Amino acid sequence: MDTPSERFTLAHGSGGELSNQLLEGSVFKLLHNEFLQKRHDGAVFELSGRLAFTTDSYVVSPLFFPGGNIGDLAVNGTVNDLAMCGAIPKYLSLSFILEEGFSKEEFTTILSTIRKAADAAGVLVVTGDTKVVERGKGDKLFINTSGIGKVHPKAAIDADNIKIGDKIIISGPVASHGMAIMSVRQGLEFESQIESDTVCVHKQVLELLDEFGTDIHFLRDPTRGGVATVLNELARQTQLGMAIAEQQIPVDAQVQAACEMLGLDPLYVANEGIFIALVDAGVSENVLKTLHKATSKQLAAIIGTVVAEHPGQVVMQTEIGGRRVVPMPSGEQLPRIC
Amino acid sequence: MDTPSERFTLAHGSGGELSNQLLEGSVFKLLHNEFLQKRHDGAVFELSGRLAFTTDSYVVSPLFFPGGNIGDLAVNGTVNDLAMCGAIPKYLSLSFILEEGFSKEEFTTILSTIRKAADAAGVLVVTGDTKVVERGKGDKLFINTSGIGKVHPKAAIDADNIKIGDKIIISGPVASHGMAIMSVRQGLEFESQIESDTVCVHKQVLELLDEFGTDIHFLRDPTRGGVATVLNELARQTQLGMAIAEQQIPVDAQVQAACEMLGLDPLYVANEGIFIALVDAGVSENVLKTLHKATSKQLAAIIGTVVAEHPGQVVMQTEIGGRRVVPMPSGEQLPRIC
Repeated sequence: MDTPSERFTLAHGSGGELSNQLLEGSVFKLLHNEFLQKRHDGAVFELSGRLAFTTDSYVVSPLFFPGGNIGDLAVNGTVNDLAMCGAIPKYLSLSFILEEGFSKEEFTTILSTIRKAADAAGVLVVTGDTKVVERGKGDKLFINTSGIGKVHPKAAIDADNIKIGDKIIISGPVASHGMAIMSVRQGLEFESQIESDTVCVHKQVLELLDEFGTDIHFLRDPTRGGVATVLNELARQTQLGMAIAEQQIPVDAQVQAACEMLGLDPLYVANEGIFIALVDAGVSENVLKTLHKATSKQLAAIIGTVVAEHPGQVVMQTEIGGRRVVPMPSGEQLPRIC
Repeated sequence: MDTPSERFTLAHGSGGELSNQLLEGSVFKLLHNEFLQKRHDGAVFELSGRLAFTTDSYVVSPLFFPGGNIGDLAVNGTVNDLAMCGAIPKYLSLSFILEEGFSKEEFTTILSTIRKAADAAGVLVVTGDTKVVERGKGDKLFINTSGIGKVHPKAAIDADNIKIGDKIIISGPVASHGMAIMSVRQGLEFESQIESDTVCVHKQVLELLDEFGTDIHFLRDPTRGGVATVLNELARQTQLGMAIAEQQIPVDAQVQAACEMLGLDPLYVANEGIFIALVDAGVSENVLKTLHKATSKQLAAIIGTVVAEHPGQVVMQTEIGGRRVVPMPSGEQLPRIC
């Protein structure tokens, strides 16, 4: 059994002695760098040019899942959002909302994961905040990470740049993150465990920008709502059609089986380690080659084309030869997936 | 009675149709600007030089209080943290964690307040995120705001610059925010209502930096834990002594009375619209004059001096002539004050 001192109390969020102990004893120790060292309300650094700025709050439940925990999710998610802006991720902020009674041991494990994920992504956590809410007014731990990056000089990522004929490329197999979370929630067992794909993708993105520059028209990571939601948003925003082919969409066999078991469409399931790129048709095969060079699995695929037909809609050629509209999801398939 | 459609459901956080309706129908409409217009995962802008970056999550309860609500608190708090770095606030991110069942009407009111506070502070909300958690797993609404600012060319705000003889200046009366929240929680009634001091202070700060530059050694806003906590942190960090005089500390008579009624020491109560400046003794009287010019009330005051004695401690000369240590608070005086 934990002793009360191993769990968070409201006083840890008070700004007083216990807040200081929490910060000095774990947060600053595990995340140590010259910026946090200043113990100030914010971080100051030199940075110039076109910058990208993004934010995400993470409320994933459960906090720990096969392949990761809320800590690497919070780092990778925000790093990836910066990458989707065509930016080299630089600095992160980190803000915790802890529920009274949450385990300090779990918190420390998550902090260590944050440190590892930040190191792997080459970013620094430079400023932060910690709040504690009463038992029953939160759910163990919510994390917000915001991030700043420097936009790649060749990047021109903008939905306005999407044009008819652009190829729709996906960088890896879909639905792993969502199904990893669901398998824990539902207590499903498979031959081998389904793992979340939570990983940072900015190195792949920066390589594409180096090589293909403005021929990379748009980037988006299909997190909540999955590939179907991202493509629907783009179809609406551009008032162009998105035509995709079911058989081109990479799905791990076990993930596919789990989706079928739960009656979920993998196109709507969340991802945390892949991205969608809309690229000039002329470079699409070479983009694919570059993506394939990066991993041994070579699962990136061209899944479709931007078309003039069915403006505002996503239409899929099915494996059995038919065509169907892939609608924007209306309800909630998988709450608190990220 | 509200109909169910006037309250948030989990689907509003799903990334699907209802998420889109929420964003298009209220968030993007009320906060409209060229950056949000892009509907991307992050915002891209040009900014160069020494930048400041800060984050804060706001979990104040209740959401609405005399003088403000969580919306202006979230804007002003982060704007002020940037100001404390000596920076001109520029861009904010905004991330909501909504509890299922929270009122859309209240949310809209808070969004309007955010817009007004951002306009007043001269900052733009350029990127954001919305999550919804199940009933009983949150508390109506938590907000994270992160911010980016451009550091004033003359600013050199660093605890390392604090030196013996520096004067400790406070920009206005203490404890108003905390007591405004407490008066609502406790249902206290006074002759006139105690109002939170939630306001942005960066204009005052930038004026000081224009005029006094590097003679402004350090800035900090005494939010959670109040003036006593900030001074204790500085005493520890610098290993210098902070000597303050009780009779110099400005407290509104009604706030003082409310503190006495609840047995609270105003030095430990949260503030949201004042700051502490540690300045070179040679300019302290002129700093005070500049602060007094800014408001008709002229309540800024020199409350003490940085001394070689009692290193690491805050010692107060009391009104009745004695001296006492003002300790770092250990426990939780006022949870969820910001």
